[in-house]
Amino acid sequence: MAAGEFDIIREVFAPLAEGAAGAFDLTDDAALLGGDMVVTKDLMVEGVHFLKADPLDLVARKLVRVNLSDLAAKGARPTGYFLGCVWPATVKLADIRKFAEGLAADQAFFRIRLYGGDTTRHGAAGAPLVLSATFFGTPSRPGFLRRAGAAAGDDLYVTGTIGDAGLGLDALRGAAKFAAADKEFLARRYRLPEPRLTIGGALPGLASAAIDVSDGLVADAGHLADLSGLRADIDAASIPLSEAARGWLDRQGEKSSAYGRIATAGDDYEILFTAPQSGRRAVEMAAKLSKTTVARIGHMTRGSGVRLNGPDGEAIALGAGGFDHFA
Amino acid sequence: MAAGEFDIIREVFAPLAEGAAGAFDLTDDAALLGGDMVVTKDLMVEGVHFLKADPLDLVARKLVRVNLSDLAAKGARPTGYFLGCVWPATVKLADIRKFAEGLAADQAFFRIRLYGGDTTRHGAAGAPLVLSATFFGTPSRPGFLRRAGAAAGDDLYVTGTIGDAGLGLDALRGAAKFAAADKEFLARRYRLPEPRLTIGGALPGLASAAIDVSDGLVADAGHLADLSGLRADIDAASIPLSEAARGWLDRQGEKSSAYGRIATAGDDYEILFTAPQSGRRAVEMAAKLSKTTVARIGHMTRGSGVRLNGPDGEAIALGAGGFDHFA
Repeated sequence: MAAGEFDIIREVFAPLAEGAAGAFDLTDDAALLGGDMVVTKDLMVEGVHFLKADPLDLVARKLVRVNLSDLAAKGARPTGYFLGCVWPATVKLADIRKFAEGLAADQAFFRIRLYGGDTTRHGAAGAPLVLSATFFGTPSRPGFLRRAGAAAGDDLYVTGTIGDAGLGLDALRGAAKFAAADKEFLARRYRLPEPRLTIGGALPGLASAAIDVSDGLVADAGHLADLSGLRADIDAASIPLSEAARGWLDRQGEKSSAYGRIATAGDDYEILFTAPQSGRRAVEMAAKLSKTTVARIGHMTRGSGVRLNGPDGEAIALGAGGFDHFA
Repeated sequence: MAAGEFDIIREVFAPLAEGAAGAFDLTDDAALLGGDMVVTKDLMVEGVHFLKADPLDLVARKLVRVNLSDLAAKGARPTGYFLGCVWPATVKLADIRKFAEGLAADQAFFRIRLYGGDTTRHGAAGAPLVLSATFFGTPSRPGFLRRAGAAAGDDLYVTGTIGDAGLGLDALRGAAKFAAADKEFLARRYRLPEPRLTIGGALPGLASAAIDVSDGLVADAGHLADLSGLRADIDAASIPLSEAARGWLDRQGEKSSAYGRIATAGDDYEILFTAPQSGRRAVEMAAKLSKTTVARIGHMTRGSGVRLNGPDGEAIALGAGGFDHFA
């Protein structure tokens, strides 16, 4: 099937949300219900969003964290969640207990609770673990931060570091070689995202638009740009890299394509946001207070799509532009 | 694995809901959030909750209706939902459109809207369609109707007819023979439940406890009895049957085991509820006003578990007692 997740949502599902207040025509990853409840739902499928070999407590924590990342990008504070599990036919009670240990750990860490859900099992042997979570949060006082809203001239920022999770997946699959410590770091970044809730909570009123980076920096910058009716210009050399990713980049011969790989790898779960140039001091302060690194990586301009400028100023060719968990 | 869905929820997941207001230790199928929002989440898996050959528009409508049935048993009025789909790797856009047609039809019928969700695809060939929905509703004025709350001596009622969906599944699988019209009726009862929202909305303040019958009459009566600390006594001859199910029963030689089959088949999606004997006139009135048939099928008494009394007064042996979508 040629259609990607976003085409299907726009063409097939968005009409079903017509007239639903707070659903924003499904252009955002979360809805605002009753004006005071932010709700988001993310699925994870074995073999697509995590590996069969991933420890189940970490899978549980990733499920929590990818959903919290959606809330973080809205500036919302999480409160609790509903959980749906479809276990393989051969699941053992010990597996489910291990999974629940991960949930318990992150529930305590993020101070959230389980509200309810559904748990079932596949009928057929070999069918993969499917996880679903619906997370609830309260919006921060200045409101709900959307993907649309950036203005031409706004700066473009991203939290943390980019590309680690994609390299971690390569490392776990044996598609790229790393020193043991780097491999461990990158694999952890793939398996255990860090939702940026603290700085997220400070962004409403400060940022003009925000999105969590799950499909890849370029793809998510594209969503933000499309919804704001603008183009996102990103300076590749400004993309924040971990030491492990920096080392990998230094070892690549073709720098442009290496930057392209970093900028289109999925699963970063950082926040990409825009803010007016007049807000630079405020963004620095929010970064400092929330103890979160924030890098200014480009700006918004008239036009459409995303332009990734290489270290020598040339535009890097991007191909499809992102990682689509659907296609 | 020997543990069933309810054991797993009680042992593994209920501790994760400790202290969550409105989650009722996961003993109910829905939670009451913020005092004014009823939320429920149900999964459906191909090969477990529906057949691969079932038309996708009907599968979509079943997903809507099994969730609405949970809200109906709480006396809540549905408002909208979040949807999660994991499609087979080979899905066609036409399949997704067909599915969305079913959603649109039932959204119009039940006046609900889509709020958001997530759609993705399996990585491996052959993996089954998995559907998840999180439904929202508003509680009726007298409040939220729970599974616990029945008193000894209360009457036990059920809406509609029981056993049709189980016989419909048998018919679709070729495990039982029916005349064409009966097969069509029973298959439709399996594929397209009728959530009892109208009478459900009238039950808070009238019923002492309620549950939707999804695991089978006996199993769900058992849940209600356990949570109320009582025994449910059901008179098999009082169980309301459709003409098709009555015809099937008449053709069975061993009536006790035939009643047992009816009372333990799953997927009825009727409401089982208790009410004090003094409320009989009010229950009749609610049934009349909501144009829903309601049958008095037994009563609650001291003890535990469920006793199904056969047509000659003997207790019918029940074995495991219900259909567990997990085990």
